[in-house]
Amino acid sequence: MSAERSIAIFSPGLLGGSLAKTIQQRKPGIEIRIWARRADAVDEVRRDLPGVFASDDLGEVIRGASLAVLCMPVQHMADIARSIASCDLAEDLIVTDVGSVKGGLVSELEAIFAGVQTAFIGSHPMAGSQKTGLTNARGDLFHQAACIITPTENTRQADLDRLRTFWLKLGCRVQEMTPKKHDHTVARISHLPHAMAVLTTLAALGEDASVLDSTAGGFRDTTRIAGGDPAMWAGIFLQNRAEVIAALQDASGVMTELLEMLRTMDEEALRRFLARAKALRDLLPAV
Amino acid sequence: MSAERSIAIFSPGLLGGSLAKTIQQRKPGIEIRIWARRADAVDEVRRDLPGVFASDDLGEVIRGASLAVLCMPVQHMADIARSIASCDLAEDLIVTDVGSVKGGLVSELEAIFAGVQTAFIGSHPMAGSQKTGLTNARGDLFHQAACIITPTENTRQADLDRLRTFWLKLGCRVQEMTPKKHDHTVARISHLPHAMAVLTTLAALGEDASVLDSTAGGFRDTTRIAGGDPAMWAGIFLQNRAEVIAALQDASGVMTELLEMLRTMDEEALRRFLARAKALRDLLPAV
Repeated sequence: MSAERSIAIFSPGLLGGSLAKTIQQRKPGIEIRIWARRADAVDEVRRDLPGVFASDDLGEVIRGASLAVLCMPVQHMADIARSIASCDLAEDLIVTDVGSVKGGLVSELEAIFAGVQTAFIGSHPMAGSQKTGLTNARGDLFHQAACIITPTENTRQADLDRLRTFWLKLGCRVQEMTPKKHDHTVARISHLPHAMAVLTTLAALGEDASVLDSTAGGFRDTTRIAGGDPAMWAGIFLQNRAEVIAALQDASGVMTELLEMLRTMDEEALRRFLARAKALRDLLPAV
Repeated sequence: MSAERSIAIFSPGLLGGSLAKTIQQRKPGIEIRIWARRADAVDEVRRDLPGVFASDDLGEVIRGASLAVLCMPVQHMADIARSIASCDLAEDLIVTDVGSVKGGLVSELEAIFAGVQTAFIGSHPMAGSQKTGLTNARGDLFHQAACIITPTENTRQADLDRLRTFWLKLGCRVQEMTPKKHDHTVARISHLPHAMAVLTTLAALGEDASVLDSTAGGFRDTTRIAGGDPAMWAGIFLQNRAEVIAALQDASGVMTELLEMLRTMDEEALRRFLARAKALRDLLPAV
C-alpha cells in the first residue's frame, strides 16, 4: 500500500480542479500534473492552481505518475485512455476515473490499460454541483462524499487497497460494488433525481414561467440540479440508459398510482402513499 | 389603513407559531391570542411563547381581535370558521388564513363570515418546512417569502390594504391574484414539486432502500419535501385536485418525451430538452 508520489489529472473541470485543490490541502508534497486539451485551459490551470504542473501534452503529464484520474465527460474517456496507454507509463501506475457510469465504460477502459500491463479501476466520487468548471472547484467538494469504487475479477487486491486509501485520504466515504450494481444504484439516487428535477421544471414553467414569482424553497430545492450541464447529462443518461429507463418507468408507475388516487379522491390511500414516501425519505440522515 | 391592535391565531403549528414569533419580533406591543384545540397544546403555547394569551375557548381568543388568522389544515378551516362566526366579534375584524389552496375554500369562508358582516380575505404565505409543529416555529420563517393574497369582487379596498400591510410588515413579498389563478400557480410551483419529490423517493428507494448509502446532495435536495406531513399534503392535493392532476399530466407528458429520446438514443434532442429545462431553472434568482 505505497503512498502516491505523483498524481496526473486529465481535464481540469469542477471535479479535476477540486481534486487538485483537495490533494494540495490534504496531501501536501505530492506532485500534481494536470492535462488540458486547450492551451487557454492550460493557462487557466497555471493561473488558478499555483504549484501544479499543467500541459496539453498527454505524454508529459502522465510521465512518472503513480496515479492517473480521468475527469473528462464519460463519452470522451475511452479516446483519451487510448492516447494515454500509448505513452511511456510508470510501472506502478494505477488509472482511475470519476465518471458517473461504470458498466460498459469500466470493461472498455480496463481492456485498454490491460493491453499495456497497467491497472484500471473505476471510481465514482458522488460529489458535484450544478456549477461546473475550474472556477467553481473547491477543496472541500469531496469531504464526506460517498465514493464508489468498482473492482472487477481482474483487479489486484494491492491496487484496490491503494485506490481506496487515496479516496479515504481525500475525505470520502469509500464503498465497493460491481460496475453493474453501481449503475443500478446511481440510476436510482442520482440519474433519476436529475431527470425528475428536469421534468418538474419543464412541467411547472414550460407553459408560463411567470409562476416563478411566487416560488418558495420547495421548488428551489426540488429543481436545483436541473441547472446542470445539458451535454454532460445527456452523455450520462445515454451511457446508463437501460437503468435510467427502468428507474423512470418505476416513477411513471407510481405517478399512475397517484393520479388514480386523486381521480377517485381516495384520501386514505393517498395518506398511506405519502406516508410511505415520508418513511423512506426519513431514512436519510439529517445533515 | 389602521394598524392591528390584537391578532388571534387559530392553531399553533409551524405556521401559527412562526406567525406569533414574527409578530413579537417585528411588531412588539401588539397583543397575540392563540387558540388550540387540546389543553396540552394550550400548555405548550404558554411554555414556548411567553407573553402570548392562549386558550382552548374560541370565543375568548377572538374577543376584541382586529385580525384573525386561520392556521389549521385546510380541511378543518370551514368548521372552525363557522364556530368563530358564532362568537362575539369586533366590528373591524378581518379574517384571513394561511391555507395552500384558495379556490373553493375562499368562497366558502367568505360566505361564512359575510353572514356576520365580517370580512374574509384569503392569504397564502409561501413559507413552510418539512418540519412541522410549534417546536420548529421560527421568527424568520416569513422573511422574504412570497405571500399571495386573493381578494374577490366582494373585498373592500380598505380591508385589502390592511391585510397587505400586515404581511408586508412581517417581511413578506405580497402578491395579489384571484383564488383561481392562485390555485393554478401553486399547483405548478408547490404541489407538483411536492408530488415529484414523493415519486422520486418511491421510485428510487421503494425496491431497495440500501442505495441510500451512496446518496449525494442531488437526491437529498430533490426529495427533501417528501418528508412533509402526509395528512396535511393529502388534504392539499385533494382540495386542489383538478390543478394537481393537470400539472402531473404535464409532467407525465414530458416524461414520455424523455423516455422516447432515451429509447431512440437521440442525443441531440436530449441535449436540447435538458438545455430547455436549464434555461427555465436558471430564471430563478440565486439565493
